[in-house]
Amino acid sequence: MLKTVFIGAGNVAFHLAQAVHALPDAEVIQVFSRRAEKAARLSELLACTYTTDLKNTATDADLYFLAVSDGAISAVLRQLQKSPKLRKKIFVHTSGATPSDVFLPAFPRHGIFYPLQSFSLDRKPDFSTVPFCLDAARDVDFQLLFDLAAQLSKKVERVTDARRATLHVAAVFVNNFTNFMYTIGAAICGKEKVNFDLLQPLILETARKIQDNAPREMQTGPAVRGDEATITRHLNMLEEMPEFAEIYKMLTEKIRH
Amino acid sequence: MLKTVFIGAGNVAFHLAQAVHALPDAEVIQVFSRRAEKAARLSELLACTYTTDLKNTATDADLYFLAVSDGAISAVLRQLQKSPKLRKKIFVHTSGATPSDVFLPAFPRHGIFYPLQSFSLDRKPDFSTVPFCLDAARDVDFQLLFDLAAQLSKKVERVTDARRATLHVAAVFVNNFTNFMYTIGAAICGKEKVNFDLLQPLILETARKIQDNAPREMQTGPAVRGDEATITRHLNMLEEMPEFAEIYKMLTEKIRH
Repeated sequence: MLKTVFIGAGNVAFHLAQAVHALPDAEVIQVFSRRAEKAARLSELLACTYTTDLKNTATDADLYFLAVSDGAISAVLRQLQKSPKLRKKIFVHTSGATPSDVFLPAFPRHGIFYPLQSFSLDRKPDFSTVPFCLDAARDVDFQLLFDLAAQLSKKVERVTDARRATLHVAAVFVNNFTNFMYTIGAAICGKEKVNFDLLQPLILETARKIQDNAPREMQTGPAVRGDEATITRHLNMLEEMPEFAEIYKMLTEKIRH
Repeated sequence: MLKTVFIGAGNVAFHLAQAVHALPDAEVIQVFSRRAEKAARLSELLACTYTTDLKNTATDADLYFLAVSDGAISAVLRQLQKSPKLRKKIFVHTSGATPSDVFLPAFPRHGIFYPLQSFSLDRKPDFSTVPFCLDAARDVDFQLLFDLAAQLSKKVERVTDARRATLHVAAVFVNNFTNFMYTIGAAICGKEKVNFDLLQPLILETARKIQDNAPREMQTGPAVRGDEATITRHLNMLEEMPEFAEIYKMLTEKIRH
């Protein structure tokens, strides 16, 4: 039985800890969160203990998941490295953005356990389709991480820090910036009291189309057609929303090139 | 039996004509396209005639669908209005961008039959989920269009020209610009030889999330968190792709506001 501890009880920890705990040969023995109610909620689901003080982190686990915000990782590690017992354990973080040298030099058996998906508390993810990007300083530890991830997902890959950083910046475009396009669409509809729901099937289809086609080949719209009349009409309509007009102009120009 | 003619044999006509023809009380009696092979392909699927010359447009139909490119609609109408018989018929176009006065004054019984979805030849759409935005100059014709669309889809609405124009500009953001974000993500991965497929589940989930949440509330990422360290790191990574860096900078700044 692989014993694990989850440092963090946010969206990633909430779902990943439950999935790990549900495996036949792994268990979560403790959850840490500075926020007691979050720690309590998750530990109750896992029927394990929790702590709100890093000093009380259990030292008898094999694998420690750091699923805290990117900005908190180093501070948490600085605290945990005070325990000589913990420094001998396997430590992984679940972040797309954080280089693995954050673990050095205190934790030589470190690794990455990055589920490339966006998690929300109220949406249960289907981990079998979530790509896991793994890495580890030692091959024997990588094998352990791989065996664990392969029980959760059909898509597990070894991904270096450089490639993970590339995926993360690409994810900002396809996830964060795309969601911002949805936000603008909703704001335009809201201003004119048009039902944004009418655009939902289009949004889904746009995402589905590129599941088996290169996005470049799926590009449609006035910009790629060079349809000046429509572009001018749209910019006139956006006159009272200058921030959106500016984005429209810039993206239209870039698509043309 | 409602007799219809399809002017156009592109992506919209290809799928819509087949769906109309499959209804128990409607049929397509003729297809027009200047491109013979397109007209022939669609007319064969419908077991109807086709023509490549607008002068030969059948005059014994009840309803004429103009499903040609936005830029071609007026030219096609200028040709068709030479026939006094045709000027008495119901004419609709399927365009999101074209105002309905394009039919005036020659076709007093005009309307809009706009399926708000993105169509590709090789993807059979599920029309039952496609929102149809309809309008008509005469109420009796609107009723006919509504009855027809309601057999195709669960979502049929009367949408004025102004609201259709709003939906169309919003669609540019949520569809065309979103697809461009996917294209950039794929280009970044391509440059670094990282498998873009790893981002596909994230893309789908980003679209699915807003099916029942306001996109504004789903915004995540370094921009909304004000995570300067990650933003700086990303901009450094994009140094060799200045076009993408410029877009990253602009969208990050707009998200912050």
